[in-house]
Amino acid sequence: MEKPILTKEYLEKNFKNTGTNLVPYQPKEVRTSTFSSNLKELPNKGIVRDKVVDLETAIKNSGLQNGMTISFHHHFRNGDKTVKVVMEVIKKLGIKDLTVASSSFTDAHNFLGQYIKDGYVKALQSSGCRDELGEFISAGNCETPLIIRSHGGRARAIESGDLKIDVAFMAASASDCMGNANGMMGKSRCGSLGYAMVDAQYAKTTIILTDNLVEYPNSVISIPQNHVDYVVEVDEIGDSKGIMSGAIRLTTNPKEEIIAENITKVIVNSSLFKNDFSIQMGSGGASLSAVKYLKKHMIEKGVVASYALGGITSHQVSMYKEGLVKRILDTQCFDLAAVESIYENNDHIEISASMYANPHNKSPFVNNLDFVILSALEVDINFNVNVMTGSDGVIRGASGGHSDTAEAAKISIVCLPLIRGRMSCVVDKVNTIITPGNTVDVIVTDFGIAVNPLRKDLLDEFSKAGVKLKSLQEMRDFAEGIVGKAKPIEWDYNRPVAIVEARDGSVLDIIYKRKG
Amino acid sequence: MEKPILTKEYLEKNFKNTGTNLVPYQPKEVRTSTFSSNLKELPNKGIVRDKVVDLETAIKNSGLQNGMTISFHHHFRNGDKTVKVVMEVIKKLGIKDLTVASSSFTDAHNFLGQYIKDGYVKALQSSGCRDELGEFISAGNCETPLIIRSHGGRARAIESGDLKIDVAFMAASASDCMGNANGMMGKSRCGSLGYAMVDAQYAKTTIILTDNLVEYPNSVISIPQNHVDYVVEVDEIGDSKGIMSGAIRLTTNPKEEIIAENITKVIVNSSLFKNDFSIQMGSGGASLSAVKYLKKHMIEKGVVASYALGGITSHQVSMYKEGLVKRILDTQCFDLAAVESIYENNDHIEISASMYANPHNKSPFVNNLDFVILSALEVDINFNVNVMTGSDGVIRGASGGHSDTAEAAKISIVCLPLIRGRMSCVVDKVNTIITPGNTVDVIVTDFGIAVNPLRKDLLDEFSKAGVKLKSLQEMRDFAEGIVGKAKPIEWDYNRPVAIVEARDGSVLDIIYKRKG
Repeated sequence: MEKPILTKEYLEKNFKNTGTNLVPYQPKEVRTSTFSSNLKELPNKGIVRDKVVDLETAIKNSGLQNGMTISFHHHFRNGDKTVKVVMEVIKKLGIKDLTVASSSFTDAHNFLGQYIKDGYVKALQSSGCRDELGEFISAGNCETPLIIRSHGGRARAIESGDLKIDVAFMAASASDCMGNANGMMGKSRCGSLGYAMVDAQYAKTTIILTDNLVEYPNSVISIPQNHVDYVVEVDEIGDSKGIMSGAIRLTTNPKEEIIAENITKVIVNSSLFKNDFSIQMGSGGASLSAVKYLKKHMIEKGVVASYALGGITSHQVSMYKEGLVKRILDTQCFDLAAVESIYENNDHIEISASMYANPHNKSPFVNNLDFVILSALEVDINFNVNVMTGSDGVIRGASGGHSDTAEAAKISIVCLPLIRGRMSCVVDKVNTIITPGNTVDVIVTDFGIAVNPLRKDLLDEFSKAGVKLKSLQEMRDFAEGIVGKAKPIEWDYNRPVAIVEARDGSVLDIIYKRKG
Repeated sequence: MEKPILTKEYLEKNFKNTGTNLVPYQPKEVRTSTFSSNLKELPNKGIVRDKVVDLETAIKNSGLQNGMTISFHHHFRNGDKTVKVVMEVIKKLGIKDLTVASSSFTDAHNFLGQYIKDGYVKALQSSGCRDELGEFISAGNCETPLIIRSHGGRARAIESGDLKIDVAFMAASASDCMGNANGMMGKSRCGSLGYAMVDAQYAKTTIILTDNLVEYPNSVISIPQNHVDYVVEVDEIGDSKGIMSGAIRLTTNPKEEIIAENITKVIVNSSLFKNDFSIQMGSGGASLSAVKYLKKHMIEKGVVASYALGGITSHQVSMYKEGLVKRILDTQCFDLAAVESIYENNDHIEISASMYANPHNKSPFVNNLDFVILSALEVDINFNVNVMTGSDGVIRGASGGHSDTAEAAKISIVCLPLIRGRMSCVVDKVNTIITPGNTVDVIVTDFGIAVNPLRKDLLDEFSKAGVKLKSLQEMRDFAEGIVGKAKPIEWDYNRPVAIVEARDGSVLDIIYKRKG
């Protein structure tokens, strides 16, 4: 008997349910090659060996069409240049009605308003929106409401398919010709590519934009080549100095010093404040000041933190160098000290936004946090937090990791001054809920510390430790005793302008256009 | 008008097609917590903070049932202990008819034959099979044929869903309580977890087994916690010394020296042999000897390789230290020198099996290879290669990265002695095709060098360089002139025992039981 020839019929007859495909092997076209150094693809084998093309070619090859969804990361924060460069080509190609689903929008993206007016962009999705773009959206100029997600919620949406990205345009400060990319090397470095890593993996087409093509293979691989379709060289992807978000400033404001002391009081009187505790610090003035006090207690008590998570600044980097923190887990660098550190220090580890906070994977890093310090524009007596809409109702903030960390951390501490301008920041009902009150454990103002009544264990602990508490109602009443009750904003409930998603993708709140 | 309450109806009426889910947020149960240090899960929030359980609990929780598919990696090669430990519990739990889809089977897995006889295991899938298990399969003792895939093909199958893993049991020499794991630290270190990384990401349930629980968070994260369901502590996951595969030995065999010289001749006379060339070296004696000669030429010519890929041994590590290789991309460590190096050297980079060779992702690392040196049990005059079945027709090898690198590299060089024992290794038709001839560019024996007629460019180049070539027919004839033509094996074509998949999942060949 001769050896059977492998045909489809033979395989189907004899190998059903074996776990293999019932398709016989077909050799690809004859393997002839040239050694041209410009070899992009061996025609006979379809093996891609060089993905560098110009931006227009990359966009055309991606098959981008009207109505599709594109994405960007915001690791360059106010110094971003990539969105502008890409949108100019998209406009030139005449592609319209796009959904732009960036990880966030900053002051660098105000020009998107015009693209919306002109019809190139139909909808926005992001963690936040600021400056003129925030005002533009709040004024109802975009017919489709902005979708607001936390960092973890966005990663969840991408990984689950709720947010299907057709083309991801990911800027990287160093990339080789195959797309192995990082944000740690090069003149335009921004540090961690935490947001970008998720988009790059899940987008239908991933385009790396770089102003620094390095030799193959790149020595640090944050985005691997097996996630990348094209590599585009541009003059400048972003301004390194621009990553300094503007949100980071050490405070000299006496109010913030008091808040900082109160934050510290909460932490050091908690039974969780012991060796190997973990913490995520905010980037607000008071929370960074709290770090100052916290360090003193740590040194006095001989306490070392197992890790810092975030959102990393020079403050965590210093703590590491001072031996107060063992490891840094970084989804975004907020300043150049963090950028240098993530490159040089093996204990400073880059993590993706999904690893960081996606609530639907097998456990993101936020799950092991002991403490998180968060800021707020306003809070209400039910512990709900608004970081998004100002006292005028205009969108000017970002959800960020707020709701992710608040829900996951053992003790979430939200801090804010009791009074800003002539308004109480503790109100009856916040304008917009970004972080639901059942996940907020402690609210700290310059007036005092309030513990969520749900946390009987904390109430007990603080009582035993002699930490005096106030209720949020007391705080509100005290503030309103000084500045009066603010006139409620009049909203046009027929004109929703933004949808706030909770971490799990359900709808938490709606932001409307103001009346008039 | 009052602010609308967020109900399902309101959302469905007003927010269809906005890109968000039309489900209002529901707060999870009241957030009360204790600070028990044994806190595994906060009941109110479903947040998992500690995944360490015993093996039986992990298996029960995974929902493993009769007929499902489990997987293991073989980074410990002959020193593996994990499969045994797990199978013992599976037997105790009485779970039957499992498919065991390991990255490969080694001499450490012979006991699986008994599990097949007893019905606990119904089918095997892997890169290879050796020793008694190979004989067991070849003798037709397992009703479902073994599916053989290359490393890249296996990664393809997992990522595409062709191979759906229900439970992945991934041994790691260091893991924290949340499953951040690596193979680089600890007494049982094995280096790169290249195979494990793919299983961990795609399996329905991923269980990390470790004999080294480290504090949180682990300082090197090869498998991240967001891919891990459970962590199990065991006494010993594997024997570090066992990773020395036995396949790596420097040769003193004069035949192999000649082969090594011929390999070198091919490489250094190729126009690709210039600065920044790339190479994957085999682990066979001749190919490692070739490295010795190659280094001389590199030093003479001042040529430095951009990277080495593989399958990494002390030889690539030495080349790095000698400044002859700039980077090492590692999907598996073959000896302890490689294991130390991957931990200490930032230029020695761990890559997953998918990044390495999955032909259906956006380009694996094999795509950029200039040269690959491969071994063979036998080759035929059509350049087909067999690394799987011996001259007696018994399964005793592994597909490994053979077909992946052969297809992708610009020049694939397969080397073997012309005669082994009393048989020609160049035959009319190989018993089993693992790597199809159209992807094999050069075959090198101690008798000479043969270039695939498809490679007119190579024929041209070598002719100009004065490299004398032989045809495979010449080689076969010469060998058979000495040892005669081997009697063909008689196969029982009614009894298939293994299916050889090509990289893309199609069926390349079938291995049958021998007659009698």
